[in-house]
Amino acid sequence: MSTRIVYCVSDHTGVTVEAVAKSVLSQFPGFECSRIVLPFVDSVEKAREAAGRIAATPGALVFSTLTDPAARAVLREAGAPLFDAFELIAPAVEAALGQPAVPGAGHTHGMAPDYEARMAAVNFSLAADDGLAPQRLAEADLILVGVSRVGKTPTALYLALHFGLAVANYPLTPDELARDALPGCLNAHLPRLRGLTLDPARLAAIRQARYPGSRYASLPQCRSELVAAEALFARHGVPVLDTTRMSVEEIAARLRQSLK
Amino acid sequence: MSTRIVYCVSDHTGVTVEAVAKSVLSQFPGFECSRIVLPFVDSVEKAREAAGRIAATPGALVFSTLTDPAARAVLREAGAPLFDAFELIAPAVEAALGQPAVPGAGHTHGMAPDYEARMAAVNFSLAADDGLAPQRLAEADLILVGVSRVGKTPTALYLALHFGLAVANYPLTPDELARDALPGCLNAHLPRLRGLTLDPARLAAIRQARYPGSRYASLPQCRSELVAAEALFARHGVPVLDTTRMSVEEIAARLRQSLK
Repeated sequence: MSTRIVYCVSDHTGVTVEAVAKSVLSQFPGFECSRIVLPFVDSVEKAREAAGRIAATPGALVFSTLTDPAARAVLREAGAPLFDAFELIAPAVEAALGQPAVPGAGHTHGMAPDYEARMAAVNFSLAADDGLAPQRLAEADLILVGVSRVGKTPTALYLALHFGLAVANYPLTPDELARDALPGCLNAHLPRLRGLTLDPARLAAIRQARYPGSRYASLPQCRSELVAAEALFARHGVPVLDTTRMSVEEIAARLRQSLK
Repeated sequence: MSTRIVYCVSDHTGVTVEAVAKSVLSQFPGFECSRIVLPFVDSVEKAREAAGRIAATPGALVFSTLTDPAARAVLREAGAPLFDAFELIAPAVEAALGQPAVPGAGHTHGMAPDYEARMAAVNFSLAADDGLAPQRLAEADLILVGVSRVGKTPTALYLALHFGLAVANYPLTPDELARDALPGCLNAHLPRLRGLTLDPARLAAIRQARYPGSRYASLPQCRSELVAAEALFARHGVPVLDTTRMSVEEIAARLRQSLK
């Protein structure tokens, strides 16, 4: 099957419609596509422009989240199959609530009330990155612990950006691991510690990309650090997440779940 | 209308189903709800557990993205109105593609092939945060410029985490603004510069939270920095985004759009 173009058209950022298109299409094995996101299609004129582009693309499919039925109608004139999440889902919700949907009533994002909290969390997570500011660990919602390059920083930033969680991260250095003890400043915060671990080969590959040929990046070194870290986690009852096959979204969701 | 509980049930992270629930419900004005995400409901047993919790919640609504029809059926036994995005959207896609959906065929996330690129982008964006590493600006896909606390860092990290874009950010300090010239290292990269600006009152509020009562956080100071920065942007033809009423998702989508 040849690769088809899937347009994801939104009157806002396009984040939701792209996620829906990805999810739904992942259930069609063998269907190969390349997605093009058209965000901020928030007028009939812009819908007309998008429709022109779609009509010029042979075999295109369209996923959309357009609140304005008029814009949706214009988009449909492109002639491509169109799946609008609102059109397909809202009627069922209307029936359940006994209340009609009001197109354009709201937007998912915009200056959400949690914006400040999320930005404050990002600032905290940067300030408490990589063992900086151990005196501020008491402010953390979560403290990620693990060896170098195991994915602590991106995970902390993702949790901060998305969920407004204040997430510190603290590295387990070879010195610390040789002492076979948790860094002292972590002992007061055990319930909020989460260990991250990885498959040794994968950690080695990540380190190699940065310091090719170094001892630091060698498989035996990675393996021994990970084994020592996991032993420490087990001894202190720190929950551990093996992130080898996980996306940052999945790691974040698992960690959030562990907070409940 | 009283606040109702909306469960967002997913066999994976729950990111997509929560976004769908937010989007759809934003079209029902006056409907107040509080969302509970139940991620990783990936077996009939877990669906049964979720159904028990839902059944015990009066007036609950359920949005779901469950690929397994058996798990969906169990969830439906809770008796609450259930809107499954796959169930509602997939039939239309099946008809258009002439191919049946295969439940459980794929997941949106998992170790996506772009994972490494996104992590590399985060590392770059951290290395090139706040004017660090000016010698690496040539590697940047985008360079965000603006006064202190205008939102450069969270925006850069969001773009890196989500889209694998290498985004540097460079502050315009009062000294630089007094010289009325762009920092020299930016001149070679004009096409990739994007200015961020804010309403002065909002910037002042953000700075006040950090340095209450300071001159730095005063409204006149914020206003004069922003005016000077905007004049610089205009003189060099740097596209400017006023982020006052935007979420980080929206800022990111606008900046991405400006790259095309």
